[in-house]
Amino acid sequence: MVSFLLSLPRSPVSCFQTALGGGRSSSGHSANADNSTAKSFLPERVFEATELRLNRKGELEEVQREKGLNECGMVAWRVTMHTPEFPKGRRVILIGNDVTFQMGTFGVTEDLLFQRASEIARKEGIPRIYIAVNSGARMGLANEVLKLFQVEWIDETQPHRGFKYLYVTEKDYQQLMQTDSIVAEPVQHPVEGTVYKITTIVGAQIGLGVENLCGSGAIAGETARAYKSTFTITFCSGRSVGIGAYLTRLGQRVIQKSVNAPLLLTGYQALNRLIGRDVYSSNDEIGGIDVMHKNGISHLTVKDDIEGCEAILDWLSYVPEHREGPLPIMVDPTDPVSRPVAYKPARATEDPRLMFTGCIDPQGNWLGGVFDRGSYREAMADWARSVIIGRARLGGIPVGVVAVETRVTEAKQPADPAMPHTSEILLTRAGQVWFPDSAYKTAQAIWDFNQEELPLFIFANWRGFSGGQRDMFNE
Amino acid sequence: MVSFLLSLPRSPVSCFQTALGGGRSSSGHSANADNSTAKSFLPERVFEATELRLNRKGELEEVQREKGLNECGMVAWRVTMHTPEFPKGRRVILIGNDVTFQMGTFGVTEDLLFQRASEIARKEGIPRIYIAVNSGARMGLANEVLKLFQVEWIDETQPHRGFKYLYVTEKDYQQLMQTDSIVAEPVQHPVEGTVYKITTIVGAQIGLGVENLCGSGAIAGETARAYKSTFTITFCSGRSVGIGAYLTRLGQRVIQKSVNAPLLLTGYQALNRLIGRDVYSSNDEIGGIDVMHKNGISHLTVKDDIEGCEAILDWLSYVPEHREGPLPIMVDPTDPVSRPVAYKPARATEDPRLMFTGCIDPQGNWLGGVFDRGSYREAMADWARSVIIGRARLGGIPVGVVAVETRVTEAKQPADPAMPHTSEILLTRAGQVWFPDSAYKTAQAIWDFNQEELPLFIFANWRGFSGGQRDMFNE
Repeated sequence: MVSFLLSLPRSPVSCFQTALGGGRSSSGHSANADNSTAKSFLPERVFEATELRLNRKGELEEVQREKGLNECGMVAWRVTMHTPEFPKGRRVILIGNDVTFQMGTFGVTEDLLFQRASEIARKEGIPRIYIAVNSGARMGLANEVLKLFQVEWIDETQPHRGFKYLYVTEKDYQQLMQTDSIVAEPVQHPVEGTVYKITTIVGAQIGLGVENLCGSGAIAGETARAYKSTFTITFCSGRSVGIGAYLTRLGQRVIQKSVNAPLLLTGYQALNRLIGRDVYSSNDEIGGIDVMHKNGISHLTVKDDIEGCEAILDWLSYVPEHREGPLPIMVDPTDPVSRPVAYKPARATEDPRLMFTGCIDPQGNWLGGVFDRGSYREAMADWARSVIIGRARLGGIPVGVVAVETRVTEAKQPADPAMPHTSEILLTRAGQVWFPDSAYKTAQAIWDFNQEELPLFIFANWRGFSGGQRDMFNE
Repeated sequence: MVSFLLSLPRSPVSCFQTALGGGRSSSGHSANADNSTAKSFLPERVFEATELRLNRKGELEEVQREKGLNECGMVAWRVTMHTPEFPKGRRVILIGNDVTFQMGTFGVTEDLLFQRASEIARKEGIPRIYIAVNSGARMGLANEVLKLFQVEWIDETQPHRGFKYLYVTEKDYQQLMQTDSIVAEPVQHPVEGTVYKITTIVGAQIGLGVENLCGSGAIAGETARAYKSTFTITFCSGRSVGIGAYLTRLGQRVIQKSVNAPLLLTGYQALNRLIGRDVYSSNDEIGGIDVMHKNGISHLTVKDDIEGCEAILDWLSYVPEHREGPLPIMVDPTDPVSRPVAYKPARATEDPRLMFTGCIDPQGNWLGGVFDRGSYREAMADWARSVIIGRARLGGIPVGVVAVETRVTEAKQPADPAMPHTSEILLTRAGQVWFPDSAYKTAQAIWDFNQEELPLFIFANWRGFSGGQRDMFNE
C-alpha cells in the first residue's frame, strides 16, 4: 500500500524541510536576510518527525518505521521543527488522512488515532496541524455476506420489478452464524426448501456501520475543544467530505488548495441524482475555493501542496510555541520600531492596507506603514471585503489586525445552479459600513486572534452597521 | 415624571399578578384544573417586588417607594413570585427601561444600574427578565453651551453657505470655564473683538458623550455572560434601539410585541436620509416581527404587554428556580406518564407536531402524543421551518424538543426595499433536510436548552444536509 506520505507529490515532511531550508523569500519577513548566510546558522536537523501509532490499549506510542507502514487510514506524527522563531525547536502534532487506505475514510480506528493525537496537542497546548484528504465516514461492506447472499425475485425474468427478500442457504447460514454476521429467519423457498431470509446484516468485522459515526461525533467534539485550547490549522490538500469537512471547519483556520480540494457534505453526482438532472459538473463547484474562500471558510488559498506547507509554517511563525507561551518576536534590525510612519493616504480611493503595509512612492522611495515591512498577511481576503483582517508584526511582535475598507466594494451572490431562473446578484457595498457578513468576519477574526493570544489592533473608522431590512432579515 | 411602570397600559408587576392570579387556561398545562378551586390554594401574596436603587457608591440597595420615583431611565426590582411550580416563591431580577426618562436612553447611570442588577441575577443564578423600551445610547447636549454659543457665518445673509467657526464671547467663556465645559482658543472677531473659538465641547455634566458608549459595551458584555450563567429573557415591549437591540439579542430568548416594538440599529428616517429617498415608511418594516420573527431573533410574538408578561411567566414554568436547581416538575394526575401514545400518523402530509402534542381524531376522541397534554410550546416558529423547536413536559418534567419537518416548506426572502429591481423570492424546501438556517436553528435551540438545563428530545428523521452550491456559499 502506497502511503499518504508518498501519495502527495512531496510529503508534508519534505515540504516542511523545503520551506524551512530553502529560504522563504516569497513569504516575507526574512526577505531582507541573505539566504546563503542564513543557511550557515541553520541547525543540522531542521525537522524531526516521530510517527505515532495506536497500541492494543488504544493509546498512542511512538514508533520509528518507514513511511507507508501505517495500519489504518490515519497517520500522525509528533514533530519538532527548528524555525527562525524557535531555533531550539517548536513542537507540533501533525495529523493526516491516508487517502490510499480505503479511500481515506474515517473508521473506528482512524477516529481513535485522530482523537488521541489531537488530545496530545490539546493537553500540551501545541499547534495541531491537520492535512485533510478523505472521503468522509466509512460505510463498510460485510464481504462474507456479499459473497453468499441470494435474491428471491418477484419475477426472475424481470428483475426491475423488485425482490421479495434476500436469503442464504442452510449451509451458508451455518457458516455466517459462526461470526454472527447476520440475523435471519427460516422461510420456505419454492426451489431450495428451507432457506434463511436476511433481516439484518451485522458483519463479522468491527467498523462497518454506524459505529463509525460515533467516532465521527467524538472527533468533531475533540476538534471543537482543540480550537478552544490550542492553535488548530487545517490544510485541505484534497477532497474533504462529511466528517472531514466538519473537522476542517471546526478547526476554523483553513488553508485550501485551489483545485481538486473541495470541502463537501455531499458529492456532486449524488446531488445531481437527488435533483434529477445534471446541475453540477464537479465537486469544485460546490466546495472549491470559489465557494469556500468567498464565504470565509477557507482563510487562505494556495496553488499546491508545497505552497500549502509553506503557508502553514509562515502562519505558525505568528503563533507562540505553546498556549500561554511567549509570542515569537522576530526583530529585523534594518526596520527598527522607532521608524516613522511615512505613508500618508493621498486620496480617499487608496487601498487602506497601504496604511499598515507601507508602499513605494512614485519616486521609488519606501514609505513605511504602521507594521514591520513585509510582515502583513491577510486572511479571509475574498469574503466580506468591507472589513480587512490580517496578521502582522510591530517591532517584531506578532499582532492581529482589523481594519475598515474605506472604498466601495462589490459582493457577488452567485446564481443557484439548481434553480434555473436565478441569476448572479452583484451587491454594491458602501465603505466604512458593517454588513452582516463583515460584522461576522470581524467577530470571527477577533475570536481567532484571541485564541492565538495575539495583541489586537483595530483601525476603527466605521460609520456603523448597515441596518436596512435585508440586512436585518439576514441577521 | 410619569414612570415606566405607569406608562405601560398595565405595569409588569400587575401583569404578572393578572397572569398568576387570573388563571392561565389559554396558555396550557393547567388547562384541566378548575381555576376557582385552584384559586383557593393561592398564597395570599403571589407577587412581591422590591425596587433596587443605586447608592452613592454605585452599588444597589433595596428601596421601598412609590412607582415613578426613579432617578434615572432604568428601573430594577428583586421579585419573588409564588407560581404553581414554586408555591413557596421563585426569585427573579426584573429590569426595565423607563422610556419616559430622556426617551429611555442608556446613559452612564442607566448602564450601571442595569449592570449591577444583571450581576445579581448572574451571581445567584436566577432568571433575568429585561423589559426593553428604549432609544439606544444617550447622546447628550451640553445645555450650558447650547445657550451661549454663537456662529460666525461665511455669509450671514446666506447661512446655507456654511460657517467659519462657533464661538463664545469673552464673558461667556469665563463662565463656561468654571465648569470646564469647552475647550476654546482666542480669535479676533471683526465685530466683537476677542472671542473664543470652540474646538471641543466637553460639557459640565457627566454622561453626555462617548462615556455612554463605554457603559453600553459593559452591559453588552454583562449580558453575554449572563446568558451563559443564568436564564435570560427579554420582552421587547416597545422600540429597542442600538444597545437596546444588542442586549435583547445577546440575551437570546426574545418575546416581541407584534406592533410598535421594533428592534433597530438605525431608525427608518435616518436610513431614508442615507439612501436619499423614502424607502422605508416605518420602523416595523426594519425591525418588526415580519423581519425579527422570520429570522429567528424573536422566539415568540405576542399582541400586547399582558400577553407578553403571561408568556414570560409561562416560559419560566419550564425553568429551574435557579441555575443547577431542580427542574420544576408539574404532574397532572389526569394525564399519567404511563399513558399510551395513541396518535399514529395517518398520512405523510400530517403535521409532525401532532406526534408529540397529540390530537383529537375525527370521532372526537383524544389521541395522546409523546408529551403531556397541552404542555408543548413552540419557539422560533416562523424561522427556518424545516426544523421544529419547542419546550414540553413529559411526566411533568420540562424538556427541550427538536423535531424534523417532514413536509415541504416554503421560505420567503423578501425583496429589498432599498433595491427597486429585487423581488421577493419564494424558496421551496424539501422535508427532512437541514438547510443552513434550520441547521443554525437546531444548534441555537440545543444551546438554549443546555443553558436551561432541560433534558433534550431529538426526533431524528433527517435525510441529511442540503449541500448544494447556494447552501454552501451561504455557509
